[in-house]
This record gives sequence, C-alpha cells and structure tokens, in this order.
Amino acid sequence: MTPLWRGYSLLYLEGQERAHPQDLGQAGSCVPMFYTMPFSVCGVSGCHYASRNDKTYWLSTMEKAPNRPFDGNIIRNHISRCVVCEAPASAVALHDPNSKRPPECPENWTSIWQGYSFLMYTGGGDEGGGHSLTSPGSCLSQFRAQPFVECQGARGTCHFFANVYSFWLTTLSNSSSTLSDVQDQSNHVARCSVCIRL
Amino acid sequence: MTPLWRGYSLLYLEGQERAHPQDLGQAGSCVPMFYTMPFSVCGVSGCHYASRNDKTYWLSTMEKAPNRPFDGNIIRNHISRCVVCEAPASAVALHDPNSKRPPECPENWTSIWQGYSFLMYTGGGDEGGGHSLTSPGSCLSQFRAQPFVECQGARGTCHFFANVYSFWLTTLSNSSSTLSDVQDQSNHVARCSVCIRL
Amino acid sequence: MTPLWRGYSLLYLEGQERAHPQDLGQAGSCVPMFYTMPFSVCGVSGCHYASRNDKTYWLSTMEKAPNRPFDGNIIRNHISRCVVCEAPASAVALHDPNSKRPPECPENWTSIWQGYSFLMYTGGGDEGGGHSLTSPGSCLSQFRAQPFVECQGARGTCHFFANVYSFWLTTLSNSSSTLSDVQDQSNHVARCSVCIRL
Amino acid sequence: MTPLWRGYSLLYLEGQERAHPQDLGQAGSCVPMFYTMPFSVCGVSGCHYASRNDKTYWLSTMEKAPNRPFDGNIIRNHISRCVVCEAPASAVALHDPNSKRPPECPENWTSIWQGYSFLMYTGGGDEGGGHSLTSPGSCLSQFRAQPFVECQGARGTCHFFANVYSFWLTTLSNSSSTLSDVQDQSNHVARCSVCIRL
Amino acid sequence: MTPLWRGYSLLYLEGQERAHPQDLGQAGSCVPMFYTMPFSVCGVSGCHYASRNDKTYWLSTMEKAPNRPFDGNIIRNHISRCVVCEAPASAVALHDPNSKRPPECPENWTSIWQGYSFLMYTGGGDEGGGHSLTSPGSCLSQFRAQPFVECQGARGTCHFFANVYSFWLTTLSNSSSTLSDVQDQSNHVARCSVCIRL
Amino acid sequence: MTPLWRGYSLLYLEGQERAHPQDLGQAGSCVPMFYTMPFSVCGVSGCHYASRNDKTYWLSTMEKAPNRPFDGNIIRNHISRCVVCEAPASAVALHDPNSKRPPECPENWTSIWQGYSFLMYTGGGDEGGGHSLTSPGSCLSQFRAQPFVECQGARGTCHFFANVYSFWLTTLSNSSSTLSDVQDQSNHVARCSVCIRL
Repeated sequence: MTPLWRGYSLLYLEGQERAHPQDLGQAGSCVPMFYTMPFSVCGVSGCHYASRNDKTYWLSTMEKAPNRPFDGNIIRNHISRCVVCEAPASAVALHDPNSKRPPECPENWTSIWQGYSFLMYTGGGDEGGGHSLTSPGSCLSQFRAQPFVECQGARGTCHFFANVYSFWLTTLSNSSSTLSDVQDQSNHVARCSVCIRL
Repeated sequence: MTPLWRGYSLLYLEGQERAHPQDLGQAGSCVPMFYTMPFSVCGVSGCHYASRNDKTYWLSTMEKAPNRPFDGNIIRNHISRCVVCEAPASAVALHDPNSKRPPECPENWTSIWQGYSFLMYTGGGDEGGGHSLTSPGSCLSQFRAQPFVECQGARGTCHFFANVYSFWLTTLSNSSSTLSDVQDQSNHVARCSVCIRL
Repeated sequence: MTPLWRGYSLLYLEGQERAHPQDLGQAGSCVPMFYTMPFSVCGVSGCHYASRNDKTYWLSTMEKAPNRPFDGNIIRNHISRCVVCEAPASAVALHDPNSKRPPECPENWTSIWQGYSFLMYTGGGDEGGGHSLTSPGSCLSQFRAQPFVECQGARGTCHFFANVYSFWLTTLSNSSSTLSDVQDQSNHVARCSVCIRL
Repeated sequence: MTPLWRGYSLLYLEGQERAHPQDLGQAGSCVPMFYTMPFSVCGVSGCHYASRNDKTYWLSTMEKAPNRPFDGNIIRNHISRCVVCEAPASAVALHDPNSKRPPECPENWTSIWQGYSFLMYTGGGDEGGGHSLTSPGSCLSQFRAQPFVECQGARGTCHFFANVYSFWLTTLSNSSSTLSDVQDQSNHVARCSVCIRL
Repeated sequence: MTPLWRGYSLLYLEGQERAHPQDLGQAGSCVPMFYTMPFSVCGVSGCHYASRNDKTYWLSTMEKAPNRPFDGNIIRNHISRCVVCEAPASAVALHDPNSKRPPECPENWTSIWQGYSFLMYTGGGDEGGGHSLTSPGSCLSQFRAQPFVECQGARGTCHFFANVYSFWLTTLSNSSSTLSDVQDQSNHVARCSVCIRL
Repeated sequence: MTPLWRGYSLLYLEGQERAHPQDLGQAGSCVPMFYTMPFSVCGVSGCHYASRNDKTYWLSTMEKAPNRPFDGNIIRNHISRCVVCEAPASAVALHDPNSKRPPECPENWTSIWQGYSFLMYTGGGDEGGGHSLTSPGSCLSQFRAQPFVECQGARGTCHFFANVYSFWLTTLSNSSSTLSDVQDQSNHVARCSVCIRL
C-alpha cells in the first residue's frame, strides 16, 4: 500500500463537555500535527479558541508516564503514531471471543495484523466513545489497561487520570474477578485479526 | 452472496453508564456467541469483569416475552439472529416517508429486502444510539414497538423495561396522536428498501 | 455523477432528550421532504407522534434569520439544500490545519470541492454530534459561526438559540482569543478538500 | 396551625433539559396558581417564554388518568392540592423499613400524619430529584406507583409517560421480584411518620 | 441582626464536569475570600489541585462586563458581595406570579427585602442548580438576564458565556414571546418578598 | 443532647442511573439498618426490587479495604456509623480556607466538633452530590482521599472504585500540584468547625 501521510493518533475530542470520537480505522484519526487544542468553538458571540475547558484524547505509547500532568516536549513521547495508507480495498476486523487465538481471515482474504479487541472507552465526565467491531480501529496491536491519555487543551498538559477506562471484549463468560496481574489481563482479552480482500 | 458466519444481533452496549452502539448494517453487530456480558473494563487498577452494572442490548424476536426478568436458556428464544455475508458491493438503505410503499431502488440497483425505517433508540439512563439512514441497519424487516431487549450483564437476566424506546420515521406530518392499536402503528411507520448495485 | 434525489440537509435529531446525528457525507442526511418532526416514538404503551419535546437540527442557509422563532413557509428559506449523487468511488475529506490553503489531493485523486473543517456541534441540553474527519460531511463549503438551526418538532417552529455551538479545526495553536470579527473567524478556520479517486 | 395559602403541589421543573426539584415539605412547593409553564428563561439574547421544550412535574391525584395527553380544564382534576401552614416548630419525617407499621414519634413529639416513604423520582431525559429523608416531603400519605404527572409547558398538555419512575424505601431486603399486584406493592413499601415537637 | 462576616456570593461549583450548588439563602454561599478555584479533588491517586477543568460560578454585579474573558484584579469588580447575619428566626421567601407587586408578608411577619423570583440556572455542559422557592436565595433584589459569571478555576479567568441561562418565575401565562427589551423583561418577572417573623 | 437512634451513614443513592444525595447533617442520612439495596422502583408496570443496576453510597470507616469487591459480613466493617441526637438548636458549619486552624465559633456559640471541609463528591457515571457549606455534613471529623464506598444493590457487594472522587475546600490558592503524600493532603485541606448556639 502507498503511505499518504504520518501523524498522531487522535481518539476523541471533548468540546463543551461533550465527546466526539474519531474512528481509529479511518484516515481522519491520524492528525499530521499534534496540538493539545486543535479546534475553536463558534456561536452567537463569534469564535473562541482555548477559552474554556475543552480536551483531546490520544492513543498513548507503551512508555511509562509520569505521575503528574506533563507538558512541553515530553508529551510527544507518550502520543502514539500512525500512518495513512491507500489500499486496494477496505480492511475489516474480525473478533473471536471464543478462542485464545486470533481468528482466521475468510477464504480469499489475508490478515494485515492481529491484536486485541478494543471496544469502547470513557474519560472525563463519563464521556467517551467506541468503535464498530467491523472497523480496524477495534483491533489494537497491543493491549494495555490504559491505552490513551487525556490532554488539557488550553493548558497544554496531558495526564493519565484515574477515571479513564477502556473496554475490551473478553473470553471470560461467567466469572466475576479483578484481573490486576498484567499477564492475567491480556490472557482474557479477546483476540482479533484485521483482514483485507486479496 | 457467501455467508461468513451466523450469530446474535447486538444493538448496543452500556459500560460505566455510557452507551456505545453497533451498526446493525455492519458485520460487527452479528456476534457469534451470546453473552449477557461480553466485555471487561480496564483502568488504573487493572481489569474487572462483571463487577459493576454494565448492560447489553440485543434485537429481539417476535416471541412474546415474560412479564418478569428472565434468564438461562429462555433468553436465546428472545434474541434475534443474524448472518454475515460477503457481497460484491455495499448495500444501502433508501427511505420514503411520503409514500405508504417502500421506495424503488435506483436504475441498475436491486432490492434485497424491504422493511420499516428504524431511526434511533434509547434505553436505561436515557442512553442509546441510532443508525445512519444510509445503513441497512436503519431498515428492519419487521416493525414492533419494542424491537430490542435489555440484558443485565453481571446477573445474566434480560427484560423489556418500560423506559426503553424505539424511534421510527413516520408518514404523519402534523397530527398529534397516540397510536396504540398495533395495526395503526405499522400503518404510519415509513417504509424503506435496502438496495445493492447490480 | 448521476443525481439520485434532492432534499434538505438533516444534521441531527433529538428524541427523549438524546441526540442522534446523521453523517452529512452520506445519503441519509439528505431528506426529500422537510418536516420539523419526521419521527414517532414507540414503547410499551404504543407509539406517540409529536407528544413530547423532540427536536430536529438542520444545516442552515446564509440568509439572515429573524430574531424570534419562525414557522410556516419562512422556514424553508433557512434550511440548506442537498443533492445525492451516485459516484464511481467514495469521496474522502482531507484537512490541513498547518496551512491557510486547502490541501492538495493525493496523486491520482481529484478535488470535487474545498471548504472549512467542520468538526462537531452541540445544541440544546448540551447534546450534539460530529463527523469523522474522513467524511465529506466534515468539509463545509462555507464557514459560518452558526451553520445550523434548531426546529421544535411539535410546534413547527425553528430558531437560532444562543447555546448552540459549532466546532471547527483551527490554524491557531497557542493563543487564547475571542475572534468576533467575521473576517477574523474564517481566517483561522482550517481548510479542507474533498477528493475522489480518478 | 394557621393556614397561610392553598395551591397545587409542584414536584420539579425542567428547564433546558435539566431538572430542578422543589422540596414537598417546604412552602415553595405549594404554588397558588397552576400553570403548565410558570417560568421564562433569560440569557445573552434576552428572555424567552415557552419557546423551547421545558416541562413541569406535579404530584397527581388518585383519579384515573386518560390514556392520552390531556389539557384544558381536565388537568386540574389530576393535580394534587396542598396547604401551607404556619407551625410552632419544624416537622420532620421518620422512617422504619424494618417494620410494617409507621414508626412511633420520639418522646415529647407527636405525629401529624403517617404515610409511605417516598425517596426519589425520575422523569423525561432520566432527570429528576428526591427528598431528604428528614423532610416531610419524603412521607406521602398515599402510595401509588405513579404519584406524579408531566406537563408540557408550551403546549399546555399533561400525561403519564412510561419512562417516569418513583422510588420508595422498601421492607424487602434480599428478594428480586416484580410486584405488580397493587396490594402487593403497598405491602412492601416502608412506612413513615411525620412528627412535630410538642 | 448581627453581621458575622462579609464575602463573595458563590452560586455553584463544577467538579469533574458535575455541578453542585450553594443555597444563596444560607451562610455557606457567602465565601470570605474569592478564589477562582477554592477546592481540590481527591481519589485513589491522591489529591490534585487545579489540574483539570473545574469551574466556579458567582453572582455578578451590575457592572458591564468585558467582551472577552477577564482576569486579575478586574474580576472582583464583577463578583457580587454578601454579608452573613445572625437573625432571631429564619427568613422565608414568598412569591406571587399573579400580581405585579411583591406579595405582602403574613400577619406577624415583616418584610426584610423585595425582589425578583430567581428559580434556577444552567451553565457550561448544561449543568446547574436552583433554589427552593422558600429560600431567600430565590428572591434576588435586582433582575438581570445574566445574573452570574463563570470562572475558569485553573486559568484564573472569568467570562459571561453565551450558553449560560437564568430562569425566573413569570407573570405571563400563555403567550410565546421573546422579551428582549430590558424594560419588558423585568415587567414580566414575578415579584417576591423575603419575610421574617416578628 | 438526647440520642434518638444509631445507624449507618448513607451518603447518596443511585436509581435509574441518577444520583440523589442525603445531607449528612440531617437525621435522614443515618439509616437504622444497613442494606445494599433499601429501595424499590415503581412505574407504569408496577414495582421492581433490585432488578436493574441501582447502587448506594455510604461513608466509609478508616479500615483498609480489600482490593476486590467484598460482601457479606465484611461490609459492615467498612460502613461508617452515626447517631441522631435531639438538640436545642440547629448546628451550623463554618469554614476558613485562609487559615490552617479551624475557625472560632461566633460569640455565644460553642463548637461541637472540628474537621475538614468536605464539599462534594462524584461516583459511578459521574453522578454525585454535595453539601451546603452551612450543613454540619460539610465538616467531616477525619480527612481521607476516599471517604465513601459504593455498594452494588442487587449483588450485595461493595468496593472502592477508581472513578470515585471527593472534593474538599483547600487552603491552596494558585499552585498546580499532585498531593499524593498523605501528610501533604491533610495539610492543604481547609478546616472547619461545627457550632451550636448556647
């Protein structure tokens, strides 16, 4: 496939305390430049930039984050990177919560990557979003309990807050448990494959 | 078209009291196995399964439901079934609120089914979702006032609660009325066709 | 491209105080007939039409609106029009917040229009929606601070209320300012192009 | 005690899709005149009256309500009445979920009435409110499953909608059941007494 | 009455995107020192101060506000002042939407001030609060369409945003109108008296 | 003062995903018996008990809680106790964020206890409540970052979840910091006194 551009993985935005997600499987979620605040808000009194409390949420890297809000150049170490490619056909995700292995692609389809079934997420104000289970955005190549970070638009800081959740399809069907051992966590998350037609 | 798999029709999920829908017109809404709780929630304290109050919502069958929450094997009688097919092109829905008959497909397109214009829905906590009117998921082959059921993830029970609504495009344009006679209801719901290019 | 039908641009609906958007880049957002209330709500007590407080939101024209709620024939002067076309391939939007000019389409792609990066919106009750930055719906050919109008379904009136916001990608990166001069506003809104593969 | 005025029992109001309750144990909940819309909303563009979708909720009488929204003179038959009295001391509510009889007032206190423990309520948009368990408003003299009615401010109609709930303290402690037999319902609702110091 | 302290009139606070009001009729709403951010938030990861997006809302003075967010010493010119007094009995508000004059206090009661019936309010995120109609906080001595200002805690700025509403009891009963002429506005707002027992 | 009864400190309830608080300074918050689910919900289909996802929130003890949801007899070790007393006058809280010591009561008033200024709180679904700063409930004798626990009504389990916050008035006025050292936390929380008139 031909790469069209590279950028930073935007998961969702929050304006006026309301979330609007971007589909990680679509080109629009790969933003060429990173800004903690990429939008302005317009209404009857004109447009304002960074005058209130809006936020952005980005997929994060595996790097261990500071305990406190961080800003400046440190931020880019924690924001996940992406590439937009032109492909001959659409890619789709397949999930199989019944098995510990990623599913096989159908006949005449090939797998472009395998990962973990990332379903939905919530952040500040219990706002959030999610993915269609058909979108490649629902299949993240790596599992982490906290796969995204919150950035305070106006202040230019980012932080992993405690009330930020990710939801994953699971192979468990009837036990109630806290899975805090990191090995344990990825064992129970359902696996997925992203397939494209040959 | 080639069938790829069969499963149960997942309409939306609610995690941490926030809804995330699945598009009934996409493969991701057809889940191979039925679980009242197919996901776990992860955060700063690790991952939990079925430890709080999350729910799932599924399209329901025409079978008359019990008055009380039901569980176990009875559930599957009330969950609608689906099949995922590989098709040569995308299918789209067309709606015509101006007519009592489903619309004609454009020239060079053919109709794969006809139904009723199912626009959006709300459930517990006034959470919910909806469909793009272009998605085949917005055209349900049968009309019912309560086309989906709520399942309590952790408890393994399902029930048709009273504060669960479905919204349908309508042929009425200016009268205010309660349409409680079931015949009357389907007379006023707009019709749609799902078309695919030949 | 072949025009299939013309209609009115529906941005989102609000039923039971919950919003459900339509993607302006998809055919479903172009509704052949205009109604302030195109849907009915069904539940355990049957179906009701226009019995509560539901609303619809439509893209608006450039025409100056009255100060007060307006109804009847005046409404149509303020509702933006659309056309649905059959195209040989999907159109996608590209955005470039780094430049004051709309971006170039990739090699082998051509631009069908250029506009302003319309990201998301909120209306009554802080409900709203948004677009995928890949959808042509995220690229409006004209910028206005108030690009859509709210219609009261049951009452048949429309109005530009003060707590209705639109959010636009911006070329500003670190200044806090009120941009109330209309010239100023469109200077800082990011530009976009809608491209289709040749 | 001296009666100061008589009126209609206002439970809560909803403006801009947000609820604000009145305490049924305080004089402010007894409104001398009944209006479906007693308030106007003011902001940067001045004040509007009944231009949007605001609602009021009132305690209802025992009279059987029509199946459809009702208006005009019929409404007053369904709105509960109240009287405001000047008393030598504050009255307080006591609740006893452990017993099937209303609790005894403490020594040197006397009971002014006995009733059922009415805790909280939700209506449209899952908005609502509740009472302090100390307030006399938390002790309603009669139990009904639907003790209040919703009125559409601008339209002047009222109706008992299906997604309107009342919450009562209960003597049940560990059984899960649907109590639909009306006799059964009042048997399990906790009892309370309103006491005043002699 | 004996004055106990003087301060600034705090209307409500917003933490984690959720509002919590203070009753303007109670001493707790009169804060001795003014801070845009008077609280910190604690949870499983310890306590944070001003690290996210919390806000405070204060009653405002009659002074004309700048068009843009303002900070520093200018703020205090716009924050309304209060005094807490020890009184021999509780004061209560009485409202009369039926008359253009403030109501008379009952026999043996005297009026301490008269004003306008201030019922409830909403701000950012459609969060807000209101008063019991019995509380003196529901009777503001002066009417303005925008009686309170929003302050951004962490940034130390305040501003009158467009989506901030106040709700007032009104003498209008059945007309739909925009009352934008300031004279007109105060003519239709219901009057109230704050009374105390002699 | 005369003790009237002893019980468990109920902070707030959540029914149908909506919170309703109890004022810790009023008798209604001291519930004689502890139940994870003390209420049933009634509507058009009758009354249900523990059939959905309702929760209760209780003040907690200082005892270290398990990492996982706990149930049965263990719960009572973690639920804070209370006593309701008859007093000759109302008690009020006074706060002084300007000083590191609790404020003095006014002349002719005496202090009944001193504590930390507990302002508001949020739990699941970003629901919650708070106290009037005049109520004794706003002055907790001990400070903890997590002063309350969430109980799952139907399941009979309780747990300290990560997205549960408490908000305290603070003596800090302009620094942004994470105060994770427990000593540090109580140093910056404002102090208060609960006073009663002699």
